[in-house]
Amino acid sequence: MSAEVETNTTMRAIVQRVSRASVTDYKTCVCVCVRACVRACVTVGEEQISSIGRGLCVLLGVSSEDTQRDADYMVRKILNLRVFEDPSGRSWSQSVMDRDLEVLCVSQFTLQCVLKGNKPDFHLAMPAASAQPFYNAMLDAMRSAYRAERIKDGKFGAYMQLHIQNDGPVTIELTSPCGSSDPRQMSKQRKEKTRSHSGRETDAPGSPQDPNASSRVDGGVSSERKL
Amino acid sequence: MSAEVETNTTMRAIVQRVSRASVTDYKTCVCVCVRACVRACVTVGEEQISSIGRGLCVLLGVSSEDTQRDADYMVRKILNLRVFEDPSGRSWSQSVMDRDLEVLCVSQFTLQCVLKGNKPDFHLAMPAASAQPFYNAMLDAMRSAYRAERIKDGKFGAYMQLHIQNDGPVTIELTSPCGSSDPRQMSKQRKEKTRSHSGRETDAPGSPQDPNASSRVDGGVSSERKL
Repeated sequence: MSAEVETNTTMRAIVQRVSRASVTDYKTCVCVCVRACVRACVTVGEEQISSIGRGLCVLLGVSSEDTQRDADYMVRKILNLRVFEDPSGRSWSQSVMDRDLEVLCVSQFTLQCVLKGNKPDFHLAMPAASAQPFYNAMLDAMRSAYRAERIKDGKFGAYMQLHIQNDGPVTIELTSPCGSSDPRQMSKQRKEKTRSHSGRETDAPGSPQDPNASSRVDGGVSSERKL
Repeated sequence: MSAEVETNTTMRAIVQRVSRASVTDYKTCVCVCVRACVRACVTVGEEQISSIGRGLCVLLGVSSEDTQRDADYMVRKILNLRVFEDPSGRSWSQSVMDRDLEVLCVSQFTLQCVLKGNKPDFHLAMPAASAQPFYNAMLDAMRSAYRAERIKDGKFGAYMQLHIQNDGPVTIELTSPCGSSDPRQMSKQRKEKTRSHSGRETDAPGSPQDPNASSRVDGGVSSERKL
C-alpha cells in the first residue's frame, strides 16, 4: 500500500487543559517462573514520575525538519495559549502563566505519524540522537520563560502511563508554522514571526532534538518502535 | 491581530491508546452562602457517564465543511488503526477491533481551532444544529461496523471531566482527507478513496453534524463558547 494522508512536516503539540495529570512508569519484577524454565517480567505496580494540578498536559511531537524557530514558536504558544477563564469567569481569556498554573510536557514522537494503509510510520519524527537535547532545550526554555517549578516532565523515551484528567474536555492542536507547505499558513506565519520577538512571549530554547524515537536509528522500519 | 497558523478545514481526531478511560460530569449543589447573600454553585462530586478498559480514547472535532465521506473515512481509520501489538508482542500490528477492545469517543469542537494571536477561535467547527446528528451518526456507524457494546460515548456538549490513562503514551492525529488543500494529500486521497469501499473497513455513518459548539449559533464570537 502507498503512503497516504497524514503528512506531517512541522512540530506538533496536543495541548489538553487538565484538572490534574501525572506520569507513572511500571515497577517491574524479573522473576523465575516455577512452572516453565523461562524468566517472566511481571508488572508489580506503578511509580509516579511527576504530577501537576490544574494546568496543561502537552504531548509534543518533534519532526526531523524542526529548527530553533519552530521550538521558539511552540514554547511561546504553549505558555500564552488562552484556554482558561479569567477571575470573572470569562472563557478563553487567560493563559497557564496568567493563572500561575502548571505544565506537564511529555515527548510524543507518534504525533509525527504517516499512515501506510492503517499502519503508523514515524520516519518523519526527529531521529533519536538529536531529539532528546532538542526536547530538553524546549523544556529549559519553558522553565526560564515562566517558572522552573511549574514545568514538569516525564522520562524521555520510556514506556509510561500518562494519566490525564482533561477538563472540559478542551484539546487544542498546535503546529509550528516554519515547515508549513500550505500557502495560507505561510503568509500568516510571516505576520506571526514579525510579532513574535517582543514582550512576554519571547524565549528561545537552546538547540535541537527526541530519542523517544530511538529505535528508528537502530535500523528497521520506523513503525517498529515499540510503545 | 490577524488570524494565524491553525487552519483546519477537515475533520480531526486525536486518538489516544489507553489502558482505561472514563467520562464524568460534576454533580453540583446550588446553595446559599451564609456569609454573603449570593448563591454559589458548589461541586459536590463526580458522576460517571461511561468508561472503558483497554482500547482507544478518541477526541473528535467536526468541521463545518465535513461531509459523509469524511465521516466514513474517519470511522474506518479509527477502527482499523494499528496501534496495538499482536499476541507475539509485535508492535503496531493490530487494531482495536483485532484485539476486541473498546472505544470511548467524545466530541471535541476545540480541535477546530484557529488561533487569533493566542486566543482560540472556533468558527470552523460545524454549527450546533447540525453537529450533534452528524456525530451521533458516526457513533452509530462505529457500532455497526464493530460491536455496539464496544463503543462508548460522553454527554454531547456537556462540561465533563475526561479521565485518560494514555498507554505509552501513544497519540495519533487523524485528519479526514476530503477537505485537504495540500496537493500531496490530495493525490494520496484519491488512491485511498479507491481502496476504501471494500472489506472490513467500509461502513458509512448516517448524515451530518456537533452541538458541542452550540453557543456559536447563539451569536457572539466563536471563542465565547465556554468549557
